[in-house]
Amino acid sequence: MKLIHDPVHGGIELDDFAVRLVDTPEFQRLRRITQLGLAYLVYPSARHTRFEHSLGTYHLARLVSTRNPEIDEGVIYAALLHDLGHYPFSHTLEALFPKHEENTRWLIKRGEIGDILGESFSIKELENLLKNPLVSGDIDADRMDYLVRDAYYTGVAYGIVDLERLVRNLRWDGNRLILLEKGIMAGQNLLLARSMMYPTVYQHHTARIAGTMVVKAVELEGISLGEIRSMDEVDLVARLRRGEKPEVMELIKAVDERRLYKRVLLSSEDPGGDVIEELKAELEGEFGHLALVDYPPKPKFEERNAFVLVGGEVKRLSDVSPLVRALVNVRESYWRWGVYAEPSIFRKAERFVSEILK
Amino acid sequence: MKLIHDPVHGGIELDDFAVRLVDTPEFQRLRRITQLGLAYLVYPSARHTRFEHSLGTYHLARLVSTRNPEIDEGVIYAALLHDLGHYPFSHTLEALFPKHEENTRWLIKRGEIGDILGESFSIKELENLLKNPLVSGDIDADRMDYLVRDAYYTGVAYGIVDLERLVRNLRWDGNRLILLEKGIMAGQNLLLARSMMYPTVYQHHTARIAGTMVVKAVELEGISLGEIRSMDEVDLVARLRRGEKPEVMELIKAVDERRLYKRVLLSSEDPGGDVIEELKAELEGEFGHLALVDYPPKPKFEERNAFVLVGGEVKRLSDVSPLVRALVNVRESYWRWGVYAEPSIFRKAERFVSEILK
Amino acid sequence: MKLIHDPVHGGIELDDFAVRLVDTPEFQRLRRITQLGLAYLVYPSARHTRFEHSLGTYHLARLVSTRNPEIDEGVIYAALLHDLGHYPFSHTLEALFPKHEENTRWLIKRGEIGDILGESFSIKELENLLKNPLVSGDIDADRMDYLVRDAYYTGVAYGIVDLERLVRNLRWDGNRLILLEKGIMAGQNLLLARSMMYPTVYQHHTARIAGTMVVKAVELEGISLGEIRSMDEVDLVARLRRGEKPEVMELIKAVDERRLYKRVLLSSEDPGGDVIEELKAELEGEFGHLALVDYPPKPKFEERNAFVLVGGEVKRLSDVSPLVRALVNVRESYWRWGVYAEPSIFRKAERFVSEILK
Amino acid sequence: MKLIHDPVHGGIELDDFAVRLVDTPEFQRLRRITQLGLAYLVYPSARHTRFEHSLGTYHLARLVSTRNPEIDEGVIYAALLHDLGHYPFSHTLEALFPKHEENTRWLIKRGEIGDILGESFSIKELENLLKNPLVSGDIDADRMDYLVRDAYYTGVAYGIVDLERLVRNLRWDGNRLILLEKGIMAGQNLLLARSMMYPTVYQHHTARIAGTMVVKAVELEGISLGEIRSMDEVDLVARLRRGEKPEVMELIKAVDERRLYKRVLLSSEDPGGDVIEELKAELEGEFGHLALVDYPPKPKFEERNAFVLVGGEVKRLSDVSPLVRALVNVRESYWRWGVYAEPSIFRKAERFVSEILK
Repeated sequence: MKLIHDPVHGGIELDDFAVRLVDTPEFQRLRRITQLGLAYLVYPSARHTRFEHSLGTYHLARLVSTRNPEIDEGVIYAALLHDLGHYPFSHTLEALFPKHEENTRWLIKRGEIGDILGESFSIKELENLLKNPLVSGDIDADRMDYLVRDAYYTGVAYGIVDLERLVRNLRWDGNRLILLEKGIMAGQNLLLARSMMYPTVYQHHTARIAGTMVVKAVELEGISLGEIRSMDEVDLVARLRRGEKPEVMELIKAVDERRLYKRVLLSSEDPGGDVIEELKAELEGEFGHLALVDYPPKPKFEERNAFVLVGGEVKRLSDVSPLVRALVNVRESYWRWGVYAEPSIFRKAERFVSEILK
Repeated sequence: MKLIHDPVHGGIELDDFAVRLVDTPEFQRLRRITQLGLAYLVYPSARHTRFEHSLGTYHLARLVSTRNPEIDEGVIYAALLHDLGHYPFSHTLEALFPKHEENTRWLIKRGEIGDILGESFSIKELENLLKNPLVSGDIDADRMDYLVRDAYYTGVAYGIVDLERLVRNLRWDGNRLILLEKGIMAGQNLLLARSMMYPTVYQHHTARIAGTMVVKAVELEGISLGEIRSMDEVDLVARLRRGEKPEVMELIKAVDERRLYKRVLLSSEDPGGDVIEELKAELEGEFGHLALVDYPPKPKFEERNAFVLVGGEVKRLSDVSPLVRALVNVRESYWRWGVYAEPSIFRKAERFVSEILK
Repeated sequence: MKLIHDPVHGGIELDDFAVRLVDTPEFQRLRRITQLGLAYLVYPSARHTRFEHSLGTYHLARLVSTRNPEIDEGVIYAALLHDLGHYPFSHTLEALFPKHEENTRWLIKRGEIGDILGESFSIKELENLLKNPLVSGDIDADRMDYLVRDAYYTGVAYGIVDLERLVRNLRWDGNRLILLEKGIMAGQNLLLARSMMYPTVYQHHTARIAGTMVVKAVELEGISLGEIRSMDEVDLVARLRRGEKPEVMELIKAVDERRLYKRVLLSSEDPGGDVIEELKAELEGEFGHLALVDYPPKPKFEERNAFVLVGGEVKRLSDVSPLVRALVNVRESYWRWGVYAEPSIFRKAERFVSEILK
Repeated sequence: MKLIHDPVHGGIELDDFAVRLVDTPEFQRLRRITQLGLAYLVYPSARHTRFEHSLGTYHLARLVSTRNPEIDEGVIYAALLHDLGHYPFSHTLEALFPKHEENTRWLIKRGEIGDILGESFSIKELENLLKNPLVSGDIDADRMDYLVRDAYYTGVAYGIVDLERLVRNLRWDGNRLILLEKGIMAGQNLLLARSMMYPTVYQHHTARIAGTMVVKAVELEGISLGEIRSMDEVDLVARLRRGEKPEVMELIKAVDERRLYKRVLLSSEDPGGDVIEELKAELEGEFGHLALVDYPPKPKFEERNAFVLVGGEVKRLSDVSPLVRALVNVRESYWRWGVYAEPSIFRKAERFVSEILK
């Protein structure tokens, strides 16, 4: 057993198998993957990493498992490893590469961590464990940890969640995690918290601008999936700083020095993928790396699978809570796409874009 | 005016001149200098940087200045810049290079930040401002910020300090900051807090082992003062990872993967500089980079210059408080020197050292 | 100026006029009126009083006023005094007597506090100040203080509100307080927080049972409006303990010893006032004070008057936020009426009620 | 099992026997005994009671016991009941009556709580359990709870203590609680915290003035030990408000309205018991209840029995820590005696006292 101090949960106790997993180079890499990527350009204190978030997720999963002994005991290790595949700056580079979940599945089969896991689990088992609702459900250990942790490090209070009440009131029914009646308000609160952290932190437009710049730099540098899979932020930033093309060096220097592109356009109206493709091509032709399009995928309403027990009956939380129901519209209303331009060509880009989109 | 969110102080308001200083590459570099260096290997959440600490120091200096309009208005910018010269991993590399204060004095004369400062201040003025008791006294804005901030990010409660009471009760008498009677307990508490954070966080032996390894790597790589002055942690780690000698790469890889050297010896008895020099030479000859000596300078008792106003009379806090007086012995009692060795040669190194020291 | 320490806001600075108001017997009475009445039977730590809540409301009103100098300077005193008229156990006795706002208006004209106020304000002015949106609006200093304070003392996290962001972003337009765009999320959060505190704390059924028992005791004791106006909780409880009728003593003893009545019925379906009156009469006839009906007024949707500035235009927050819109249904869904009975006659009462209501 | 929400510890789980004890009138009385007595006149938010402190002490004792199964399982109930005997306003009336510990021993033999305890414990056993170092040692569950709780409710940060580290590192050796090496700093911090809370909160001179006034009122009213033993604060205040003598009513009214006596003298020099007795008699003769002497007992240095394990050896914490050693002098330096007078006779009393003492 090993005790690790954490400002969010107090002491986190790692069992021996968890210690072995943590002590691999693959897991230690997470110390150099920031939890919120480029959000530190808005919230300077948000320098926490996937490492401590992974420990926190393990911790919460263990607390819930202890109260629900029927949960597969491997789940706590899946909780520990669920973010192993994050690329540098977390979600940022998912615009170029497969989602981090896929990279997690790729990494856990390899290297030291693959050897240790192979002693106890088949690959099939691991993949199933990663899908367990305690690791990737609507009210799961992952969200419980990241909301509270991100609130703590950004100082944005909306993410505060009643972890104790959730842990006490989650019951495993063999297939699903179900919130007992005394935990419903805490569950609703978690989903509301997530919804408010979304525009305030996770999709803050300044962080999105910087993210779009980094994505362009990585694209121009031609970094391959094979390379990025196991890079940490030191590797990536150092590589871009001595990039092959001057554009790459310019972009990373601008991010390093927080000289960010300006917002030419930010809109909630989707012009459709074809228009976007055309716009991208035209801008590229005219301005090269100096004007960038940011067209994120539409949010999915994911809150449909939170289950609660009301009067002895299992229901969807969204059926019970009008606020959770209202979240469908909320998520959609946060979607935006944008065009960002380097300050020196800003006016020109503005005219150019309005010309194309009119 | 610009508002920056900070979990420790809430909103930090930067005036226009401060914004210009912050928006230089020299200041933005601090985003990539961790506040506690290698302490994150013990407290994984301690990933905060000199950037937010500098903002917090500016913020507190401004609060005190507002209540004491006779304080030179340049002091708040000195507070902002006091840590500009920190090397990667903060105090760690001060074993090889001049103290960071000297590097701060070097950097503020140069580059963009030098130009901006030069508009308003002479070099002489700047150097005086950096010596102001509000920036580098015993109860100053620097300590007030770092104790609370380091407590927040490590989760070690000892650093908690009553900032509001200190801010309300510090008075400038033309030369010194003096604590009014209502603030004495808060001042005493700050010095006690610092004393307890010392062994628990700042001098944690695990962080010291890792620090000694990094120092060795930098030494072997032959990095010059000219190079290190403006490196950030990405620069340094990337440089060591592709180091000229295999030993350098080995050392940084071990730190990255948290495969640290083990403690052969940790002692509070000082054998004297000559013995240490001899020991270093012998170990070097026998084990090369695999066995390292860590011989830090003795702590100075710095708490003599905290002044308080008791019954209308200015006294030293140490004359008024038996606890502060007791801190002299405490600080000394925390001093340790050590020998650390790579696990594979640990036993051999142990015998070797005990042979030499007997 | 006087400084008062408060765990929620830190130091609260009272100006000289506020100090004079606070130093009256009328205001000091609030030290013995608990903020949450009988909720301490569920949340034992909720022993905070209207006194510190009133100071906190004054404090927040002052912070907003300082940033909006056009706000009438009397408003901060109205904020201080807005709860002067609360009866013992706060809202509980509003089932028998006029709302506390009316009692506030009655008390501020009389006694020492009336004399002091009369020096500076006419009665008309005072009544207008009490209606100011900063004192009784949808996003006002009162709510800002009580949500955070009640969260702090109960330990129920839902009430946490980003006070700093609200204070920074409230603007007075001559008639209304308007939230600037950067404060919208904080405003929405405040209304959501209130909605979640409602069933969890303010309308917790156990506290409602105890409240219904106290109401009955006061009714049986025949305490008049003239008497209750300026009673504190010591006066009331002591009076009931030596009540004229044994039923009164029984009821208060049961509350004191937390031997509460049990819930015969708790329903969200309103049978209509006539049925309730009949039920009350029948129960009274059969069981006297041993079976009680709790039929609270329907909640009004009050969130319609929170205004926000979006893209230069003033809108209702409920038009901008789907979550705030959803609150209409939420508030209604929390309404319940109930029948509670002394344990020894519980079964009989249950049969009796189901007979009548069938 | 019953779960009680507490802002300090989160959820407190009471086992069935504890629930039975809590559900007695004797224990419920503690809901109306404030933890810090008249300190609320300085720290208005300090309205917490012995009830929640007792639950918190039970909770911490249970956490330590769970990790040390050799501790007598009755100790957690002793922790729950250790403050049962507190009089209204906690320590205040110990100037007139036996210490509360004696009253606790008297009360636990009687009434409902005596019956329930008698089922499982002999009186001898109970008295021994109350002396257990986990209930009344130097680093015990009582202190751990009250320091953190009092800090929370007053907002005075000095009381913050690392409860988790203490709980994890306390070991029972059959006779004593011993702190493991990893807990030493936390233990030292607890004793320092206590020392700083002492003058700031527990012995705040304003609270002492009010306390001295209440003591006089109780004395004048002639309340007997038999009466006071089971009174709560409602009983006492109501009794004094309708006191037999006008002086009694005057005194309690002044306390209720916070019109406190002024400090004629506050001195750290002890003139000796005889001088005090004479002074009391003279003042009494001249001013009756309008001038009061406050002569508290000298503090004992109690920190000698905190034990720690250093390098396998049990030592006193005071032998290991220079700061704890320094506490001896500190405690003494806080002792003060005083004379307080009603404002209208203040000047006269001042002259009178200086005449006598010269």
